[in-house]
Amino acid sequence: MIYEIAELTIKPDTHAAFEAAVTQAVPLFQRAAGCVSMRMERGIEAPDTYLLVVGWQTVEHHMVDFRDSADFQEWRRLVGDYFAQAPKVHHYAGVVAGFGG
Amino acid sequence: MIYEIAELTIKPDTHAAFEAAVTQAVPLFQRAAGCVSMRMERGIEAPDTYLLVVGWQTVEHHMVDFRDSADFQEWRRLVGDYFAQAPKVHHYAGVVAGFGG
Repeated sequence: MIYEIAELTIKPDTHAAFEAAVTQAVPLFQRAAGCVSMRMERGIEAPDTYLLVVGWQTVEHHMVDFRDSADFQEWRRLVGDYFAQAPKVHHYAGVVAGFGG
Repeated sequence: MIYEIAELTIKPDTHAAFEAAVTQAVPLFQRAAGCVSMRMERGIEAPDTYLLVVGWQTVEHHMVDFRDSADFQEWRRLVGDYFAQAPKVHHYAGVVAGFGG
C-alpha cells in the first residue's frame, strides 16, 4: 500500500462547508478500485490548509483508475470550488513501521 | 490526538543509514510522554524526502515536553547529520475520519 497525501489550501471562511463536502465525498473513495483508507486533517498552525490522506494499493489505482473515473469528476465538483490554489499531491511508501498504527 | 508531520529532506545516497537511524530511534518516541504513534514514509516522486508522522496527545507534548527532553537531543544526534535542510514541521488535527483507519 502507498499513501497519497494531498495538501489542500482552501478559501478563508469556507471551512464548515468544505469539511461537509469532503464528508459527503467519502463514498467516492470507499468504492474506488484499490482504495484502502481515507481521512482528512486540518492544519493547526495553518488552518486554511488540509491534508487529505488516502491509502491506495498502488500509485496507478490513484493516478490512472481514479483520475480517469467519473467519481473523480464528482469529487472535484463537490470540493473544487473551495480550493484557493491547486492541490499539491505526492505519494509515499512506508519505510519505518514504528508503533501505534 | 494531533499529528506532527515533519518533512525531512536528506542528503543523497544516505537512505539506508538514515532509515536505520530512525528505526534505532523508535524507542525514544515510544517512551516520550504523550506520544501515541510514530511511523515514517518515503516519497515516491521525491525519494530524498520523508514524512515523519507522529501522533501526540497534544501539541505541547511534542513542542514542550519532547523538545526540552534529553531524548530529543538523542534523536537529533542519531539523525541530524543526514538532513540536507532544516525539517519542516507542522501539526494537524483530524476533521474527517473517513474509513480504513
